[in-house]
Amino acid sequence: MTSITHLTVQDIRFPTSRSLDGSDAMNAAPDYSATYVTLHTDTSLEGHGLTFTIGRGNELCVKAVESLAYLIEGETLEAITGEMGSFWRRLTSGDSQLRWTGPEKGVIHLATAAIVNAIWDLWAKSEGKPVWKLLVDMSPEQLVKSLDFRFVSDAITPEEALGLLRRQADGRPEREAEMRAQGYPGYTTSAGWLGYPDDKVRRLAREALAEGWTHFKQKVGGDLEEDRRRAQILREEIGWERALMMDANQMWDVDEAIANMRQLAEFDPLWIEEPTSPDDILGHAEIRHRLGSIGVATGEHCHNRVMFKQLLQAEAIDYCQIDAARLGGLNEVIVVLLMAAKFGVPVCPHAGGVGLCEYVQHVSIFDYIAVSGSLEGRILEYVDHLHEHFEHPVVIRNGHYQVPTAPGYSITLKPESLSEHVYPHGPAWQTH
Amino acid sequence: MTSITHLTVQDIRFPTSRSLDGSDAMNAAPDYSATYVTLHTDTSLEGHGLTFTIGRGNELCVKAVESLAYLIEGETLEAITGEMGSFWRRLTSGDSQLRWTGPEKGVIHLATAAIVNAIWDLWAKSEGKPVWKLLVDMSPEQLVKSLDFRFVSDAITPEEALGLLRRQADGRPEREAEMRAQGYPGYTTSAGWLGYPDDKVRRLAREALAEGWTHFKQKVGGDLEEDRRRAQILREEIGWERALMMDANQMWDVDEAIANMRQLAEFDPLWIEEPTSPDDILGHAEIRHRLGSIGVATGEHCHNRVMFKQLLQAEAIDYCQIDAARLGGLNEVIVVLLMAAKFGVPVCPHAGGVGLCEYVQHVSIFDYIAVSGSLEGRILEYVDHLHEHFEHPVVIRNGHYQVPTAPGYSITLKPESLSEHVYPHGPAWQTH
Repeated sequence: MTSITHLTVQDIRFPTSRSLDGSDAMNAAPDYSATYVTLHTDTSLEGHGLTFTIGRGNELCVKAVESLAYLIEGETLEAITGEMGSFWRRLTSGDSQLRWTGPEKGVIHLATAAIVNAIWDLWAKSEGKPVWKLLVDMSPEQLVKSLDFRFVSDAITPEEALGLLRRQADGRPEREAEMRAQGYPGYTTSAGWLGYPDDKVRRLAREALAEGWTHFKQKVGGDLEEDRRRAQILREEIGWERALMMDANQMWDVDEAIANMRQLAEFDPLWIEEPTSPDDILGHAEIRHRLGSIGVATGEHCHNRVMFKQLLQAEAIDYCQIDAARLGGLNEVIVVLLMAAKFGVPVCPHAGGVGLCEYVQHVSIFDYIAVSGSLEGRILEYVDHLHEHFEHPVVIRNGHYQVPTAPGYSITLKPESLSEHVYPHGPAWQTH
Repeated sequence: MTSITHLTVQDIRFPTSRSLDGSDAMNAAPDYSATYVTLHTDTSLEGHGLTFTIGRGNELCVKAVESLAYLIEGETLEAITGEMGSFWRRLTSGDSQLRWTGPEKGVIHLATAAIVNAIWDLWAKSEGKPVWKLLVDMSPEQLVKSLDFRFVSDAITPEEALGLLRRQADGRPEREAEMRAQGYPGYTTSAGWLGYPDDKVRRLAREALAEGWTHFKQKVGGDLEEDRRRAQILREEIGWERALMMDANQMWDVDEAIANMRQLAEFDPLWIEEPTSPDDILGHAEIRHRLGSIGVATGEHCHNRVMFKQLLQAEAIDYCQIDAARLGGLNEVIVVLLMAAKFGVPVCPHAGGVGLCEYVQHVSIFDYIAVSGSLEGRILEYVDHLHEHFEHPVVIRNGHYQVPTAPGYSITLKPESLSEHVYPHGPAWQTH
């Protein structure tokens, strides 16, 4: 038995705004940050999880983790993992007073994600497996029991989920071998930040091409002429046989999104990401319907499975971009993977920030091996920031994520990175 | 000129769980709480605003107000009210780092509501008028300039809003006189809490009848047989010519809501409120479509104008139940009033808790005089808790809210109530 004796949480911030890494039309100067949870146990194991924010406001997620901690301290890992679906329900709805501040959205749900993911990290470490392999080795019955279908049973029942998982059972060993040999295909956003000057965009695009990337994403939604100029630079560098995606980071109203994307259509974008408010399901459906040949993608700010259910029901998206820490941790992510598989929409997770690439490699590899069984239209975001702070960072070769092998969810930060970047007293913040 | 020198915020909690006031199927034992904001100025005026929570988690809203405070401290009231629409945009999106933790939902948006409403309170006090009268006396142009139509321009443009307001301009004086003479019609939830024993339900229903109420609401969503028994008691007491509403507080999945309401249909409910997840726009539309004769109501957990826009576009609701502190303050509430008027859906605000009745009387009176011009299908929730703590509590006569006359938004708490209930060190919490 492993008892979770107590939980600690740290406010970790990286001063990325100094170089405009991660700048886009909505988020001009983010400081990539993590609400970093450690589950301490009565064994040698620790569980780690984080939620991602972009600076100010991280203190709110830290405090929300502290408010939720009493729901987990003193529990055993075995009691939690034996009834993972019930545990998730208890964490999200068991304290109705805390639930009121969401429900299942915003600060309280971001905090939930950090805790839930720390449980999965601890569980995988206790089994000596990376999270994706822990999931792949679970029976369909055990997996479905780990999930909560509340509020989505009109779109997918536990029985349907079982059916989907069983249908993919046969090919699992072959797909696992394929992943271990080739990795999961990725795309790069590193060249496309809005705050980078043209020559930096051009240089980074060339470097990315040389590294083997075939899909590139640029930020749009600022000045339309500048968007066009940067699209032109990217097309000059990557040619027309490679894919260019565009990301507006919620800058536009519905009609504005349609008008602007008609202007940018000449650059043949594969998708427009976050064209408008992340809450606007019907707006995304309208944009998708009226744009026709350009795909619509969203999800990094889609706050729970109920919203994803509707994006799928309304046929509002071509690409489902779950975020591993905006949804309430891995349990809710898996519910969305199952719904997307049922509706036939590819999942292309959001990544970048700090730790999101480390998380979602497990999600996509599991999705391919056990849920969707397909790589068609699937591609996993990659951004080359801040990986050096992790004990087991992602490994990219030739534009592909290599299968993680270390036990856990790959999210454990190095002790020296933690002490350097703890906010506001860490050395990284004293020099500013 | 009035300069806002600084902002203070208090964590105020009332131990309502001790008597199960406010108990429902989702929220078994709430402690009605307020994140209470005071805007201090360089004049004798103070502005007050609060957001409502039900206990734990209030500390998160308090901290979020502290995080937002820098956006308002040092500003003048005149600069803010002269460009109220821009101010609102700056508060909700001007700090993209804070925006990330929503956007426009959960803890950060609840905190925004407290600050925004405090501005309106201060503005109305500086004009010597109650908020509803401040609004009624504004020109359509000035009102529309106070609003932000971002993300809803596909449903209502500023020009359409102007048209709606101008259309109602003629009858304003008559409707204002009518409100002053008769008040705004209300309904009572006081008898229907889930945690009350049958004899208390019966006694409270009789008392409410004697007070002149004609519309009564009960909580459902626990055990169906108990829901039926309590509906039976209420129908025995109020008869069949008076209205009975039901409120499930988000307990059901979509198909479950339909099945259960078919069971409860024999009690002829006027509406079913919050039948499922507040995020499930398409689910509400499905329930409404399949239930037919029973109205569908929701909104107290509808977190922003984008969600209300879709509830209206999808024809998902018969009654629009805005919450004065779940939406980002009065500016966003007015945008929803305008959309509801355009779509022809009556607004029946959520109230109760602490301070919500005090707030929404201004909203509904303004809606009648200047926006919708109609009382048809409109009725304003009333719950008889905690009014004694306000400097200017609501006044009810014969089931009608009497027009508030004191300057401001009626939300100023008495100093002795604040010191008694400040959490966790106030005397009210020491005896527990």
